[in-house]
Amino acid sequence: MSHLVQELIRLIGPEAVSTAPADLAENGGDKWFANRAPECVVFAQTTEQVAKVMAYANEHHIPVTPRGGGVGYVGGCVPVCGGISLSLIRMNRIKEIHAADGVAVVEPGVITGVLQAAAREQGLFYPPDPASLKECTLGGNIATNAGGPRCLKYGVTRSYLLGLEVVLPTGEILRTGGRTHKNKTGFDLVGLFTGSEGLLGIVTEATLRLIPLPPARATVSASFATFPEAANAVQKILGAGFLPSALEIADAFTLRSAREYLGAELVPGGEGHLLIDLDGQSESVQCEVKKLASLVRDLGTVFQREAFGEADCEALWDLRRQFSQSLKATGLRKLNEDIVVPRGRLVDLAQFAEHLREKYGTPVACFGHAGDGNIHTNIMVEGYERPEVKANVGHALDELFAQVLAWGGAITGEHGIGLAKQRWWDAATSPVSRKVHTALKHALDPNGILNPGKFVE
Amino acid sequence: MSHLVQELIRLIGPEAVSTAPADLAENGGDKWFANRAPECVVFAQTTEQVAKVMAYANEHHIPVTPRGGGVGYVGGCVPVCGGISLSLIRMNRIKEIHAADGVAVVEPGVITGVLQAAAREQGLFYPPDPASLKECTLGGNIATNAGGPRCLKYGVTRSYLLGLEVVLPTGEILRTGGRTHKNKTGFDLVGLFTGSEGLLGIVTEATLRLIPLPPARATVSASFATFPEAANAVQKILGAGFLPSALEIADAFTLRSAREYLGAELVPGGEGHLLIDLDGQSESVQCEVKKLASLVRDLGTVFQREAFGEADCEALWDLRRQFSQSLKATGLRKLNEDIVVPRGRLVDLAQFAEHLREKYGTPVACFGHAGDGNIHTNIMVEGYERPEVKANVGHALDELFAQVLAWGGAITGEHGIGLAKQRWWDAATSPVSRKVHTALKHALDPNGILNPGKFVE
Repeated sequence: MSHLVQELIRLIGPEAVSTAPADLAENGGDKWFANRAPECVVFAQTTEQVAKVMAYANEHHIPVTPRGGGVGYVGGCVPVCGGISLSLIRMNRIKEIHAADGVAVVEPGVITGVLQAAAREQGLFYPPDPASLKECTLGGNIATNAGGPRCLKYGVTRSYLLGLEVVLPTGEILRTGGRTHKNKTGFDLVGLFTGSEGLLGIVTEATLRLIPLPPARATVSASFATFPEAANAVQKILGAGFLPSALEIADAFTLRSAREYLGAELVPGGEGHLLIDLDGQSESVQCEVKKLASLVRDLGTVFQREAFGEADCEALWDLRRQFSQSLKATGLRKLNEDIVVPRGRLVDLAQFAEHLREKYGTPVACFGHAGDGNIHTNIMVEGYERPEVKANVGHALDELFAQVLAWGGAITGEHGIGLAKQRWWDAATSPVSRKVHTALKHALDPNGILNPGKFVE
Repeated sequence: MSHLVQELIRLIGPEAVSTAPADLAENGGDKWFANRAPECVVFAQTTEQVAKVMAYANEHHIPVTPRGGGVGYVGGCVPVCGGISLSLIRMNRIKEIHAADGVAVVEPGVITGVLQAAAREQGLFYPPDPASLKECTLGGNIATNAGGPRCLKYGVTRSYLLGLEVVLPTGEILRTGGRTHKNKTGFDLVGLFTGSEGLLGIVTEATLRLIPLPPARATVSASFATFPEAANAVQKILGAGFLPSALEIADAFTLRSAREYLGAELVPGGEGHLLIDLDGQSESVQCEVKKLASLVRDLGTVFQREAFGEADCEALWDLRRQFSQSLKATGLRKLNEDIVVPRGRLVDLAQFAEHLREKYGTPVACFGHAGDGNIHTNIMVEGYERPEVKANVGHALDELFAQVLAWGGAITGEHGIGLAKQRWWDAATSPVSRKVHTALKHALDPNGILNPGKFVE
C-alpha cells in the first residue's frame, strides 16, 4: 500500500479509498477514448472528506481529478497526471425540495433525471436535459454547464444555479450564492465555478432553481425535401414569435442511417427533419401546435405529424433519441464534435460538411439543437485505427474548427474542452483570454493540483 | 492644468478629457447621496482610448472609476479615491442587429430602452427591464447584472450576454464569448465580468442574445383585502403552472401613498395588490388571461381588472410605475433596499416590516418582484438629516439585513453592493468568499486602480 493511500485512509477511513483494479480502470476516463488509471480512487461521502483530501493534496502537491457520472464526451475527468481520482457519486442525496421557495438542495452525485422526476412529483420543473440525463450527475452538469434541447427556451445549467458549496483546491470550503432567485452580492462566483470543468473547485452541494412545471406539451415532427428548407423553417418559426422548448434538426446522412437502423417505416422521408416542442398551459399548447403545424405545412413539408401529451410526444422523440445509435450502427467510427455556429449559418454548415466529405472522403452527419446553432457534427470514419486515416481526419477537423471560428462560432457548445478539444484551445481563444484563464487558475489553485494537464495549467 | 490631465490629452486628445466643474460634479456620483468630484472626466469614444487610459493609469497607479448612465442606486460609480471618472456614454452605437443569428452588437453607452425599441422593430426582444430603462446604459446593466419585473420569466442581464470586449485594468483588451447562443469554451469570463460593478474590467462592446418577440401581452391587476392573501395568490399562480412575465406585489403603505398621490379612483382598494403579466402567442395569452383571472377571483379579490394588448396593459402598469414617486410624495425620505427573500418568506417579510415600524417608528413600504422574492423594502424616514434619526434608521437597517440573511436571503437583488451596502458586506459573505473575491481582484487588477474604495480592495 502506497504512502498516499495509507495517509488517505488515515484521513477519511478505509471505506472511502480504493485501489481495486476495477475501480482504477472505471475511474480513469469517461466516454471519450482516453483513459489513465489514477493511483487511487476516493469515494467521498461528505464535504468534510473532500476538504480533508484537498488540504492534504494541496500540501503535498498531489494531483486530484474530480468526477461525477463519468459520461462526458471530452475526457475532462481523465486523471492524466495520476494521483487521486475523486468520485462524488456517493454524495447522491436530494437534501430538500421546497415548492414555496422554488428550490432544490442537492449533493453533486444526484443523477439529473432523478432530480427531475422528484421535482415533477411536486409540480416543479428542472429544465436542463442533457442526452445523458439518466446517468449523468448534477455535479458533472455543473462542471460542464450542461445544456440540451430544452435549453433553447429555458437556458443552460447556469440559469438554474442559485447557490453552491465548493471545496477549493486549498481545502477551504466556500459557500456562495444562496436560496433566492436573484442575488447581486459581489462577483458571480457561482458562474465562475459553473463550467470550469473541475479546474477551480469541487462542488459538494448545489441549490437549484425550480420553476412551475408546464402542464402540457406538444411536438411537431416535420420533414422537408432538403436540409436548407428545414433550416429556413427554423428561422420562420422563430420569426413568428415562437420560442419552442426544443427545435432540433437532422440532415440527410443522419436520416438515412436511422432508416437503415430503424426501418424506413419509422423514419419520415426527406433530407431535412425538424422536431419542434411546445410547452405551457394546455389550451395554449393546443392552439399553438395547430398554428405551428400550419406554418410548417405552408413551408412545404413532405411529411408531418403532431403529438399532444407526454407519451405521444416521446413517441415522436424516439427517432431523435436513436440518432446516435443509428450512426454508430453504420459501423463507422463516429467523432462527435458539438460545435456551435451563429444560427444564420445552418445552411453554410451543411454545405461545408458536404465539402469535407468530398475533400476527405468521410461522411459528415449533422444533427442537433438548430434553435441555438449547436449542431452535433459527426465525422464518420472507416478504419480510424489506421494512422493515415487518423491523420486525414485530423486535417478535416482542423478545417472544420477553423471554419466554425471564422464564422464567429464556438468549438464546443455543451461538452467542454477537456482533452478532446485541447488541440484547438489556442485557435479558439486569444492570448489575453488564456492569460486571464491562467491568472484565475493560479488565484484559486496556486499549486496546480486540481485536474491538471487540461486546457489551463 | 494638472500633469495627469496633460498626459491624458496627449494620449487621447482634448475632446475626450474634461475638467469643467459641471462635468466633475455630474460624474462624481449616481442616484445615491454620496458624491465626490474626480480629478478629471474622460469621455471615451473608442476601445483604444479606454485601453490607453487604463495602461497609463495602471503604470502610474491612478484610480479609474468607470460609469454609464449614472442612475445606479448604491453609489457604485462614485470615484471615492479621486483620479479619473471614465464615462462610456459617448460609446453609444448599436453596431448590428442580426435577426437570423438572434444577436445585437452594442457599445456600452447604448440606452437599454433604445436597444429594446430597435430590436422590437425587427420582431426581436431584449427582455431585461430595469425601472430606469429609459436612462440607464447597457454597460451599466452589465456592471450590475440588472434585472427587472420580466426577469422572473426571462432571466437577468447575464442570460442575454453572449460575448464581451473588456479592457482589463492593465489596458489589455480581452474578447471573450462570441455570437453563438451556446458556448462552452473555457471558464465563464463573460459571467465573471457581469455584475462585477466595474471592479474587474471595462466593457467596451457586448454581443447580446435577442429572442423572438412574443406577439401578445395581457395584464391582470388584482387587489386583495390583505397582503398575506396577495402573497398566497403568488404561490397559487405559480403552482398552477404559470410562469408570468411579471408578478409584482405591493403592500398597504405603498397603496395608501399611491391613493394619496394619484387619487383613490386610480388605485384599487385592498391592502395587497398584484400585477400579473402574461406574454406569448395571441390566442394563448387570451386563453390564459381568462384562466388566470378566474384563478385569482376564486382566491377572493376585492378588485380585479384584465387588459390585453400593449397600450391597455401599460395603463394598468401606470400605477406600478408611480409607486416610487408616490412614496417620495409622502414627504418622507425613502431608503430603498432591494433585499431578496426566499419566495416562501413574503408574508414573514411583511410581518417583519410591521415589527420594524413599531420598534423604530418608521413606516416600511414593501413592493416589487414577488415572483422571485426581490422586494424593494423602503424605510420611510422623517427628519433623516438629524443624527439621532440617522442612527435609529441605521439600527433598523441592521436588523432588517440580519433577518433577511437569517432567512437565507440576500441584501441586494439588483442594485449591487456599491457604497450603500458596504457596511453589510461582511455579514453577507463568509471570510472564504471575501478571500476569493480578493484573489480574483488581484489576479485581474494587481495595482488596485479600477473602481477602488468599494467592497473589494
